[in-house]
Amino acid sequence: MVAAASPNTIQNYKQQTDFFEMARFHFMDDLKNVSNYKSEVIEFVTSPNNPDGFLKKAVLKGNSVKSIYDYAYYWSHFTAIPAPADEDVMIFSISKLTGHAGGRFGWALVKDKQIYDNMIRYICLAEMGVSRDTQLRALQLLRAILQGNGKEIFRFAYKTMGDRWEQLNQIISSSTRFTIQEIPPQFCNFFQQVRGPSPAYAWVKCERKEDSNCAEVLSRAKITGRRGSMFGSDDRYARLSLIRRQDDFNLLIHRLTVLVSEENRAESM
Amino acid sequence: MVAAASPNTIQNYKQQTDFFEMARFHFMDDLKNVSNYKSEVIEFVTSPNNPDGFLKKAVLKGNSVKSIYDYAYYWSHFTAIPAPADEDVMIFSISKLTGHAGGRFGWALVKDKQIYDNMIRYICLAEMGVSRDTQLRALQLLRAILQGNGKEIFRFAYKTMGDRWEQLNQIISSSTRFTIQEIPPQFCNFFQQVRGPSPAYAWVKCERKEDSNCAEVLSRAKITGRRGSMFGSDDRYARLSLIRRQDDFNLLIHRLTVLVSEENRAESM
Repeated sequence: MVAAASPNTIQNYKQQTDFFEMARFHFMDDLKNVSNYKSEVIEFVTSPNNPDGFLKKAVLKGNSVKSIYDYAYYWSHFTAIPAPADEDVMIFSISKLTGHAGGRFGWALVKDKQIYDNMIRYICLAEMGVSRDTQLRALQLLRAILQGNGKEIFRFAYKTMGDRWEQLNQIISSSTRFTIQEIPPQFCNFFQQVRGPSPAYAWVKCERKEDSNCAEVLSRAKITGRRGSMFGSDDRYARLSLIRRQDDFNLLIHRLTVLVSEENRAESM
Repeated sequence: MVAAASPNTIQNYKQQTDFFEMARFHFMDDLKNVSNYKSEVIEFVTSPNNPDGFLKKAVLKGNSVKSIYDYAYYWSHFTAIPAPADEDVMIFSISKLTGHAGGRFGWALVKDKQIYDNMIRYICLAEMGVSRDTQLRALQLLRAILQGNGKEIFRFAYKTMGDRWEQLNQIISSSTRFTIQEIPPQFCNFFQQVRGPSPAYAWVKCERKEDSNCAEVLSRAKITGRRGSMFGSDDRYARLSLIRRQDDFNLLIHRLTVLVSEENRAESM
């Protein structure tokens, strides 16, 4: 069995597990249903979680449980790093590190030799190895990151994302119609200081009873978000991306400002 | 069920089918066992076949049978093209077309919209799309091929492979210990003329009773081949690659010449 730690996690793991219809696996998206389960369980832990950005820990424990930590967003761009990553199976990707998601390039840190061997075997059988062109490109990107003291991209990305979050937060704080997730300040082991939130996505909730489809409400204001149900959640929620290009983000801020100011004007009438 | 048209076909299809242990598929490598099978069958047809280079047609017929033509070697480099490729599902790769196997880039021509949709869905779920870096590289390669009249690479590759086969054939023809496959001349629709063989691999048979492991016999003469059992065949056979770099090929010819001349010297003593 394969399970995901959070009902809010992206549905890709479910779709993959279902699609391949493997004889030995099936997917359960509600961890509450797992507790009585007798067989082996693999739990996906998405930390920070997509879409809400919260750090997560495995929920299931025991000898029959293994965890895969999806650390795609575990960069100081998006979250405080409370401790160095040290789980048994951790998967990473260059997508959200440098923004080169098109390369489809990732890596894993794995402590158990047997699991490592299985992963290599999977890659060999399913794809006969990873494209050498892509590996070369990724190597160049990692070399560029390591130039200087190797911290520049992290400072830049944290400042950019933190500033964006602050702008967004300021608009939403003057709204009663919309709320976003609250991420508390936390000590960051990487920057060696307490730091505020800078998540990749805003997880917007439409608070009005009649706004049961939040993505649609936003869409009418020409703001594109993903429906909550795409993340196993309610459509009263919608996900806004904060990792687009600067002009996209500026447009988002502009249109949100208009949308919220209309709400305030209507209330003061 | 998934089946392969030739017991000599490369074992990758079997390994993939077995590894994923999909609830709906299992692999059968001997088509003789398939005839009584009641369920749906997918037949892999590798044409030209790896390792022996022969053109193949699907063996199984009927409403419950679908064929996937693996045309990785269906280039005039390696075979006469008796007719334009026109099967329902045909898979191609840039690996053996330009030699850029490291890109892991291929494509498919598919007539049925439903099958096309399923393939796209597989690619999205298993890999979230193909690396854009690799796609760009492949595009550049295809553009280079199309320069001029677009036939230059095919003439070059056919001449190179044909010359190599002739050199190899000449050595083997003076041996009684080793034989290789015989590929008859055939009319080529692409070159519009009858042409001789130019396969990617020599499928060597060790004819002496005691030479039951042909790859080992060759290995003692410092010639690297793949054991016949890797292709579902007997170890009395071994596969020699003729698509390596020119200096590798020269070394192969040199060492084979020595090996065969020793055999002839021994016989004349």
